[in-house]
Amino acid sequence: MEKSIARLKDISRELQLLTHSIALLGWDQETYMPPAAAEERADQLSLLEGMLHEKATNPEIGELLAHAGADGENPGGNTSLPEEDGGLVRAMFRDFGRRIKLTKDLVMRMAKQTSIGQQIWAEARKRNEFSLFAPELEKILSLTLEKAECLGYSEHVYDALLDEYEPWMKTSAAEAVFSSLKPRLVKILDKIRGARQVDDSFLLKNYPREKQEAFGRAVISDLGWDVKRGRLDQSTHPFTTTLGKDDVRLTTRYNENFFKTGIFGIIHECGHGLYELGFSDSIKGTALADGTSLGIHESQSRMWENVIGRSMAFWEHYFPVLASCFPENLSGVTPERFYRAVNKVEPSFIRVEADEVTYSLHIILRFTLETRMVTGKIPVRDLPEAWNSLFQELLGIRPSSDFDGVLQDVHWSMGGIGYFPTYSLGNLYGAQFYRALKKTLPDAEKLIAGGDFKPLLSWLRENIHRHGRIYTADELCRKVTGESLNPDYFISYLEDKFSKVYEF
Amino acid sequence: MEKSIARLKDISRELQLLTHSIALLGWDQETYMPPAAAEERADQLSLLEGMLHEKATNPEIGELLAHAGADGENPGGNTSLPEEDGGLVRAMFRDFGRRIKLTKDLVMRMAKQTSIGQQIWAEARKRNEFSLFAPELEKILSLTLEKAECLGYSEHVYDALLDEYEPWMKTSAAEAVFSSLKPRLVKILDKIRGARQVDDSFLLKNYPREKQEAFGRAVISDLGWDVKRGRLDQSTHPFTTTLGKDDVRLTTRYNENFFKTGIFGIIHECGHGLYELGFSDSIKGTALADGTSLGIHESQSRMWENVIGRSMAFWEHYFPVLASCFPENLSGVTPERFYRAVNKVEPSFIRVEADEVTYSLHIILRFTLETRMVTGKIPVRDLPEAWNSLFQELLGIRPSSDFDGVLQDVHWSMGGIGYFPTYSLGNLYGAQFYRALKKTLPDAEKLIAGGDFKPLLSWLRENIHRHGRIYTADELCRKVTGESLNPDYFISYLEDKFSKVYEF
Repeated sequence: MEKSIARLKDISRELQLLTHSIALLGWDQETYMPPAAAEERADQLSLLEGMLHEKATNPEIGELLAHAGADGENPGGNTSLPEEDGGLVRAMFRDFGRRIKLTKDLVMRMAKQTSIGQQIWAEARKRNEFSLFAPELEKILSLTLEKAECLGYSEHVYDALLDEYEPWMKTSAAEAVFSSLKPRLVKILDKIRGARQVDDSFLLKNYPREKQEAFGRAVISDLGWDVKRGRLDQSTHPFTTTLGKDDVRLTTRYNENFFKTGIFGIIHECGHGLYELGFSDSIKGTALADGTSLGIHESQSRMWENVIGRSMAFWEHYFPVLASCFPENLSGVTPERFYRAVNKVEPSFIRVEADEVTYSLHIILRFTLETRMVTGKIPVRDLPEAWNSLFQELLGIRPSSDFDGVLQDVHWSMGGIGYFPTYSLGNLYGAQFYRALKKTLPDAEKLIAGGDFKPLLSWLRENIHRHGRIYTADELCRKVTGESLNPDYFISYLEDKFSKVYEF
Repeated sequence: MEKSIARLKDISRELQLLTHSIALLGWDQETYMPPAAAEERADQLSLLEGMLHEKATNPEIGELLAHAGADGENPGGNTSLPEEDGGLVRAMFRDFGRRIKLTKDLVMRMAKQTSIGQQIWAEARKRNEFSLFAPELEKILSLTLEKAECLGYSEHVYDALLDEYEPWMKTSAAEAVFSSLKPRLVKILDKIRGARQVDDSFLLKNYPREKQEAFGRAVISDLGWDVKRGRLDQSTHPFTTTLGKDDVRLTTRYNENFFKTGIFGIIHECGHGLYELGFSDSIKGTALADGTSLGIHESQSRMWENVIGRSMAFWEHYFPVLASCFPENLSGVTPERFYRAVNKVEPSFIRVEADEVTYSLHIILRFTLETRMVTGKIPVRDLPEAWNSLFQELLGIRPSSDFDGVLQDVHWSMGGIGYFPTYSLGNLYGAQFYRALKKTLPDAEKLIAGGDFKPLLSWLRENIHRHGRIYTADELCRKVTGESLNPDYFISYLEDKFSKVYEF
């Protein structure tokens, strides 16, 4: 048994090495790769994904897992296994079980098509021309459905997709969450609509990129970001990727005429990065060294970005620093006014720049469209119109271009259909975790106002980060907060915060 | 037969995809990788090199080559094959023949050790502490000797190593070249020593990096560098690497107090890059899409850097531009004075910054040390002293530190023992090729002085670049110049140029 576990660990490490190498090709594609290299890069990714698939479906893995006692009943193998080993067996049993249902050929076609898809989507967005991207999306959707059929599902084809990003979550459960969330968000939004709008005009002044970047770097250094183990670069679409157990890379984008884009993008990605850098040494470099679900991952990014980064305490500490960086833009502004400005609530077109109240409405839109798209209820060509109509219905405004509408997100071009719901879950988990954190650190706001983030990061490391995939999202949530996911905490967080910001 | 060739092409393309992916890991290691990532990167490289080795030694390749008629007598296979196909068969026959003599295990150990070696060498150089690097070099040397024994040789163990970089060249041939070169270089150097030294004090003023870079980018754009198919970044040690058929990346370093480092580094690497981007479409992405030898490769970099880049015509065109970028540094300097300054001859410690006359003496030093090192005549621990003594003997000055001595080059840490002679060959081939170019373009200097490099690049593309590895170095040299490598052209180029610069 011990030998089987040791061998599984070795195999897992090797798979991680290859996964990280592939991630470098992806990172480079989005950051530094010259444009003409796109064509071959798609072939490189396809080849390497095919090689990874071969290694990851080696029958030896199945035999070792069986020897460790893993089966449908006991995915974590023999119950006498130490917790961490059981966690590894369970993670590998899941990964292997999903992998062997796919063919190498499908994996390679998907890798190539999504690499090409991303390039063409970027071009289509730049040109504001959905018809350029539509044929690629058709192909990606068809490959995605092929994948879903291979993976199988009992209730809804979307289950097979959602499960990739939020393991063990069903479409019906996501639907239930969104149904409970939507009216409560709309209620808060209505109250805000009735209140006096906050002034954020000073955020729209000119903020030179270099100075934004320097400020952002200083902030994440305070949060605990380690430049020896990571980087921050620019890309069209902010993301975080892990290229090694000690190599996590963040990217962001800047808008020189809208201050919030850069800084909150950086803090958000840093939240992801701190999770990835926080796995305990004993699981580093194995299948356990990953977020246990994207919902949990997003809880970290959204907590740092919003619960902490958009708090009054945070700007009590940072506003004076910021005001000294941009004295012309911020003269006469108080920390309170700045705080209210970065929390301005207003229906807007771009998801990643949406406020905390309307954000989940953007997700509900995507979830609705995706479930209809994969069941054939909306043909790809009708997506722009479907997007705009539903947007009007949910948020009361209608995008005037595909650039601001259906073309805004990279995800579909990457084959990430089923990914979006995890963003909303992240908001919910984040609020629930932060409440648990406050039980241990009741003076969290005081620490934040003093610029001392160490106790917060330590708490997150100890309770969440270090475990990686040892616990499922639900197990982790119960362990940390004493109960399963409960949207109430997020709603009461919003009510509490925005009733003060908007004085309703 | 046609089917075999088609299948060989497919295999070759796949091997290139993997080779390029590995090259990205190497490029990233030297440019953007955060320091703590070094440990895992070595494992990633080792894994991927092992996977490449497996693919590259697939017995199917041997069978296909045999089917194409390739054997020791006819490495290019059936003589009825079209020239390009015959070239591909010959290149693959050579690569496969070398590969199968190595074991996957050796390839993986070498990849890991050289990745670690580069990191430790960089640290050792920074600290000026050879003893830190010595144990790594011991291991690399031992792996290198293991490799040489696998590859086999008839005359000299160094043959097996040199052959990797300069195919089919023997140590004795390199020795003959250097024996003929050395006294003739010393003679020119002696004449220069007797003349009045040129003034280059204005090159030692402060040249801000950003402005150097902008100037360098403008220059290589004129030379024909295509930013859609490549990049220019910074690294500790300038290099060029190919990450795709349309993705070639240059790196350089800048010295803010020594203008020559940056610009000539950029032009040099651009010369390599133009070769890599110049392969004809029909061989792109196959084993033929590579320099036919490093000597030929270096002929391109050294020709652009020195024969063109350090010519009077070049600075007639560029000096006014440069003077307007750096008016404080260059006021009162004439194009002629500038031209003489960038051609100042003076024994100095750093090879890559050496003038054209002393450069090959640096190579003779390394060649001498390497051949003694691999035959056990110099133990690794004695290298610093051996370096310094021989340096004194050849160049009349003695390095006062290992930083400026034995630790200056990255090559040994990369496992590149046997590589250095190709640099000298590059000087010789470069001068010989340029003479051939002038037969077609007798007014080359006039074109250069007018900033019109297109006809020069076209000639190089047509006569050299597009062929890749279709011809061997010697075949190419005879095809282009009508004779085999002949050091006389380089010597007369030097005599002609420096008798004017130094008025002897």
